[in-house]
Amino acid sequence: MTGQKSTAEEFTEALGEDVDSAFKKLVSEMLKEGALPAKDKALIALACSVAVRCERCIKRHKQAASKAGASREEILEAAAIAGLVRMGSGFNAAAALLDED
Amino acid sequence: MTGQKSTAEEFTEALGEDVDSAFKKLVSEMLKEGALPAKDKALIALACSVAVRCERCIKRHKQAASKAGASREEILEAAAIAGLVRMGSGFNAAAALLDED
Amino acid sequence: MTGQKSTAEEFTEALGEDVDSAFKKLVSEMLKEGALPAKDKALIALACSVAVRCERCIKRHKQAASKAGASREEILEAAAIAGLVRMGSGFNAAAALLDED
Amino acid sequence: MTGQKSTAEEFTEALGEDVDSAFKKLVSEMLKEGALPAKDKALIALACSVAVRCERCIKRHKQAASKAGASREEILEAAAIAGLVRMGSGFNAAAALLDED
Amino acid sequence: MTGQKSTAEEFTEALGEDVDSAFKKLVSEMLKEGALPAKDKALIALACSVAVRCERCIKRHKQAASKAGASREEILEAAAIAGLVRMGSGFNAAAALLDED
Amino acid sequence: MTGQKSTAEEFTEALGEDVDSAFKKLVSEMLKEGALPAKDKALIALACSVAVRCERCIKRHKQAASKAGASREEILEAAAIAGLVRMGSGFNAAAALLDED
Repeated sequence: MTGQKSTAEEFTEALGEDVDSAFKKLVSEMLKEGALPAKDKALIALACSVAVRCERCIKRHKQAASKAGASREEILEAAAIAGLVRMGSGFNAAAALLDED
Repeated sequence: MTGQKSTAEEFTEALGEDVDSAFKKLVSEMLKEGALPAKDKALIALACSVAVRCERCIKRHKQAASKAGASREEILEAAAIAGLVRMGSGFNAAAALLDED
Repeated sequence: MTGQKSTAEEFTEALGEDVDSAFKKLVSEMLKEGALPAKDKALIALACSVAVRCERCIKRHKQAASKAGASREEILEAAAIAGLVRMGSGFNAAAALLDED
Repeated sequence: MTGQKSTAEEFTEALGEDVDSAFKKLVSEMLKEGALPAKDKALIALACSVAVRCERCIKRHKQAASKAGASREEILEAAAIAGLVRMGSGFNAAAALLDED
Repeated sequence: MTGQKSTAEEFTEALGEDVDSAFKKLVSEMLKEGALPAKDKALIALACSVAVRCERCIKRHKQAASKAGASREEILEAAAIAGLVRMGSGFNAAAALLDED
Repeated sequence: MTGQKSTAEEFTEALGEDVDSAFKKLVSEMLKEGALPAKDKALIALACSVAVRCERCIKRHKQAASKAGASREEILEAAAIAGLVRMGSGFNAAAALLDED
């Protein structure tokens, strides 16, 4: 707990050159400017990190979003939506309780 | 999709007698009347089924809760809490955004 | 399987007026135009729905995103990022294998 | 890692007055005495926190459950059911292996 | 519900040639014969599909495992471990209840 | 945070003799040599631990896998597949976006 924790990047590097470069290629293809600008993609990645509850991912994508020009307010609003979807997806499952009633 | 889907019980039976009986023993030890009455345990199992979004589990534990005497209102209230915890756990992760600010 | 499945909205309505209106208030506060425009919020909600693997949520938020002006390409790009974050969050956990080595 | 971590409440406060009060209203509506007493709701929230594996939620809801009168035995039994449902929901998915055989 | 559902492959194809080929490259690098034979990798992928409760993934990886030479018993044993880890990971979180006691 | 964290075993022991022995019996039945050798089972448990993102489980099963004779390369390859399945399961959900188009 006192030392620095290893990162996803260190993990893929440990997998060897072939997997590591295939992984990096996929990441760069997906996050590059496309129909959506890089800033929007960074905010989406941040929100998804909250949705799967990965704190290291959250800190990483927060940095990326800031660097891409996202404000603190935009970052917080994006993250909040993830919590809402977590609840809504629970309620969608709970709705099975109403079926066949 | 037209046929009946297999169940958790059929799965553990397919694993063979040894695993199946160990599984059933654990289930009965955990869900029997203890510090908590069986009805409370059934409602807790129902809420956890919503928390992990398993619809088949929800329907199964709804039946068990009804059989143990839970009312429709109790069942709905238990399920709703699961959605709330899903959101709260997301917000607890999102709170990492406030660290080091 | 042949009938219409109940929805999250029907579930919160079944919880009674007090909870239902509190839920709807929270949803409208979170998804309204803020630092982020409604279209961006809809795409974020869509991506989070993929991140938590809720198909009904995906269909719902796809409709909302389209209605808010999102193109098919924007919708697909947002959804793809969710898959990437799911993998990245797994690799961040797997990186624990490199600690203390 | 040495400092105090931010909480879900600090996160919703950072989202601004409107969202924060809507969130608090929903929480209080859902956890207040209803068909189920507050103690039962606290134990259900605790078990759901285990189900989604949120340690901060677990500690928070453990305190609430104790305050509402839950004993250590009741708390442990509630938490154990969450583990059981996690396994059962996995077996329900695994049962797909038996379909069409 | 009556039609054929779209697959992960159709989704990545819809993302365009660049992302699709990067995705396929990563999949083939990861699942090819390495330190672990292809059959072992297929069984691991199958178990992970149960761990994340993706039924379509389970059916897909069951086929791959069978094709790679895995027996029905091996497939069932691999899937069962996923359920066990789901429960064990819940208990590891629940152990937070014992801290500071 | 400075002290040693409690483990899943300590949790099941706290549940009392009956549940604890039923749990241990199930674990030993599932992880013992069967159609699959113990080393393969340990690698599968390790990969599933990554799939559910439980770091304590990962460290525990890494030790078990090493003890059962798994090499560092085998361990890393098994863990990597978990990340891939996390992404693939997300893409399978996202494929719902293509339905009815």
